Amino acid sequence: MKINNGMKILIVGLGLMGGSYAMALKKKGYFVSAITRSRSSVDFALKKGIIDKGSDEVIPETVNSADVVIFALYPHVFMEWIENYQQYFKPGAIITDVTGVKGAVVYKIQKILRKDVEFISSHPMAGREVYGVKNADDSIFKKANFIVVPTGKNTESAVEFCKSLGTELGFWKITALSPEAHDEMIAFLSQLTHCIAVALMNSSDNPNLSDYTGDSFRDLTRIAKINEDMWSELFLLNKEALLKEMDVFLAKMVKLRNFLALEDAEGMKEMMRISTLRREKFDN
Amino acid sequence: MKINNGMKILIVGLGLMGGSYAMALKKKGYFVSAITRSRSSVDFALKKGIIDKGSDEVIPETVNSADVVIFALYPHVFMEWIENYQQYFKPGAIITDVTGVKGAVVYKIQKILRKDVEFISSHPMAGREVYGVKNADDSIFKKANFIVVPTGKNTESAVEFCKSLGTELGFWKITALSPEAHDEMIAFLSQLTHCIAVALMNSSDNPNLSDYTGDSFRDLTRIAKINEDMWSELFLLNKEALLKEMDVFLAKMVKLRNFLALEDAEGMKEMMRISTLRREKFDN
Repeated sequence: MKINNGMKILIVGLGLMGGSYAMALKKKGYFVSAITRSRSSVDFALKKGIIDKGSDEVIPETVNSADVVIFALYPHVFMEWIENYQQYFKPGAIITDVTGVKGAVVYKIQKILRKDVEFISSHPMAGREVYGVKNADDSIFKKANFIVVPTGKNTESAVEFCKSLGTELGFWKITALSPEAHDEMIAFLSQLTHCIAVALMNSSDNPNLSDYTGDSFRDLTRIAKINEDMWSELFLLNKEALLKEMDVFLAKMVKLRNFLALEDAEGMKEMMRISTLRREKFDN
Repeated sequence: MKINNGMKILIVGLGLMGGSYAMALKKKGYFVSAITRSRSSVDFALKKGIIDKGSDEVIPETVNSADVVIFALYPHVFMEWIENYQQYFKPGAIITDVTGVKGAVVYKIQKILRKDVEFISSHPMAGREVYGVKNADDSIFKKANFIVVPTGKNTESAVEFCKSLGTELGFWKITALSPEAHDEMIAFLSQLTHCIAVALMNSSDNPNLSDYTGDSFRDLTRIAKINEDMWSELFLLNKEALLKEMDVFLAKMVKLRNFLALEDAEGMKEMMRISTLRREKFDN
């Protein structure tokens, strides 16, 4: 089953990501409603035509009329929402999310969820260093990856549906990973890079750095502007995988440091050759 | 004294940086000649009109006719060149360079240099992850910083001259730093970031990473494609400053790692708040 225009969409949580989803789906002709905590976000989205209908309260009829419900909330808020309001879901509804960690979330949700609705998890690997529906921008999906994250409880049909959602949103590449493979990958590719950017910005309090900064430092630290509540929650929910990646990276940094301390040019060069070869694959 | 169109320019080393300098200065109407090892680089630059005159050998008359000589060579090649050919400089010529480290280079050059020419060092903080005059592109200077690096041996007039060269090349911001302050700054802003990118790419041999990569990882590792001969030389020439910055960064990474291991959310958040505040200054 693929997503189609006859399906009514509900987005829960109208921040940057929820707002960008709404924008993309509305442009494709879907009926999009939203539930979010902030009244001003609802008003803004209605005024800009990003949604058809919105509320800052959980209205049972709104939930019950949705064929597809997309959650764009902090992980713990998402889990609480399901516990408190899942009785309102339309029988047969499909639920998905945008949560950045999967193992600690997906199995719990699937365990407590009603059996007549299906939760198929997904992760849009897109973002900006700004927040809120006011910064919603569906062009961020164009060059981005969309990962569907099924478990043994999911049907083929729901996986196919979720992939078609990624396509409809305009993502560049659609793939599928298990929750465990997803979390390991995200620990390395996303969480570790955010840790590095944070640690790097904590390494100097020189207020004049930007006078001398080149592009490489700017690029590397773009993600150092970080939502501390969301990311600390995501890190803790993926603690073991992230610790493992941090330790591997730390060991490689120490290795390079020691080559330098020992003036072992060949050792440094070998690491640089590996780095160059691996990075070249990303440009294809 | 400012640079002016009547001055003849000689560029020694026609790679990406030398070629981009030539391109910028030729567009401004200067007579630009070049000396470089590779015949094909000379031929390419002549054919494309990036230089007026070029040679793959050191021709005494070419050196002797230049009012301004710009060195775009590896540090050790630069120092050897001065030792071998400085007798050909025109009396009163001004010499500058593009070398990425200063303390280990500038004092040595100034010590051995003839007293009737002046070496005023500078560092264009621009670059690309490609090499050679075939990739020369003077647009890389537009948003970049140009740092003049005088010592006590330099005249006011040469500092003014070098700043005007940066302006003429089209740099965004022109500043001045001592060799020591330059090397400390470059250790943190440029060399450490390259070390991080190299260590990160060495941390995973998963060939499928690019299927899932988001922008943040791409941005952070852009500089992981690295010229191992040049960068290992630059690292060794700035060993003490770079080791210091690597150790500070490693300590901050370990601090963040331990907050995570101890599930100290507040500790992580505090580092993220500092990171966000400091990074915001770069966007102004």
